[in-house]
Amino acid sequence: MIRIIGIDPGLRRTGWGVIAVDGSRLSFIACGTITSDGNDSLAERLAMLHDGLVEVIEAHRPHEAAVEDTFVNKDAVATLKLGQARGIALLVPAKAGLSVAEYAPNLIKKSVVGVGHADKAQVQAMIKVLLPKAELPSADAADALAVAVTHAHHRTARKLAG
Amino acid sequence: MIRIIGIDPGLRRTGWGVIAVDGSRLSFIACGTITSDGNDSLAERLAMLHDGLVEVIEAHRPHEAAVEDTFVNKDAVATLKLGQARGIALLVPAKAGLSVAEYAPNLIKKSVVGVGHADKAQVQAMIKVLLPKAELPSADAADALAVAVTHAHHRTARKLAG
Repeated sequence: MIRIIGIDPGLRRTGWGVIAVDGSRLSFIACGTITSDGNDSLAERLAMLHDGLVEVIEAHRPHEAAVEDTFVNKDAVATLKLGQARGIALLVPAKAGLSVAEYAPNLIKKSVVGVGHADKAQVQAMIKVLLPKAELPSADAADALAVAVTHAHHRTARKLAG
Repeated sequence: MIRIIGIDPGLRRTGWGVIAVDGSRLSFIACGTITSDGNDSLAERLAMLHDGLVEVIEAHRPHEAAVEDTFVNKDAVATLKLGQARGIALLVPAKAGLSVAEYAPNLIKKSVVGVGHADKAQVQAMIKVLLPKAELPSADAADALAVAVTHAHHRTARKLAG
């Protein structure tokens, strides 16, 4: 049995979700959202995100991590903000000794819903089907659980390929 | 007398420079470049950048930090990479308890060279004038020293305004 943490990074809200994988059986462990205050300095907000992720990893002791590959849109300022949060989301599990996989949004949707162009509501609905004990997670936490589920589906193939 | 660390973040190369400020007198303490290997995973590269900055701050004990505000160009992939490195460059001094100021490239050039559209060679030449003991730093280390010099010029005004 291994535990996987999925992370959906964002400067304002970072979703996280931990699942357990036992063969092909998935089960919900915990999920949540780390928020930061837009009135604080950027460095303080990144430190809060860092500390929140350190706390979650210490509490739930995942063995592997998976992070959503941030969508690169045409808004450079938004991309820079996402990049800064994503840097922390990749750093914290790496510093805790976890392997860190990255998955593109389309692959995550395809893994969870079956199609690459699913919307957030469809992802949330499928997460409730796949992990019935994950009651009403926030959209960000549901996305993070979807990243963890995607890694559960792909990690064996990755290991064989690696 | 206070010590300032300036950081010019980048995923491949992050420049850093530490100066001492005593009234209006500036002096060179140390500078260098932290590089990461493009063959490593992104998480590993960010962890190397993190560890390098932690080491520099432990060795030179700066009191305040200043980070270049990354230029947001039209290449979203490059902006995302810079954002990820920049997240680490802001996080490490914040976690070490330093205040972290941010300065736009144009302001840095104006502070050091006198004009906002100076090129890298002009910045390097002025750094050698302002900090004669900073012998032949790399372009990235010279940029980092320029960020530190900019903060030395603006920190009193910032303190009075804050």
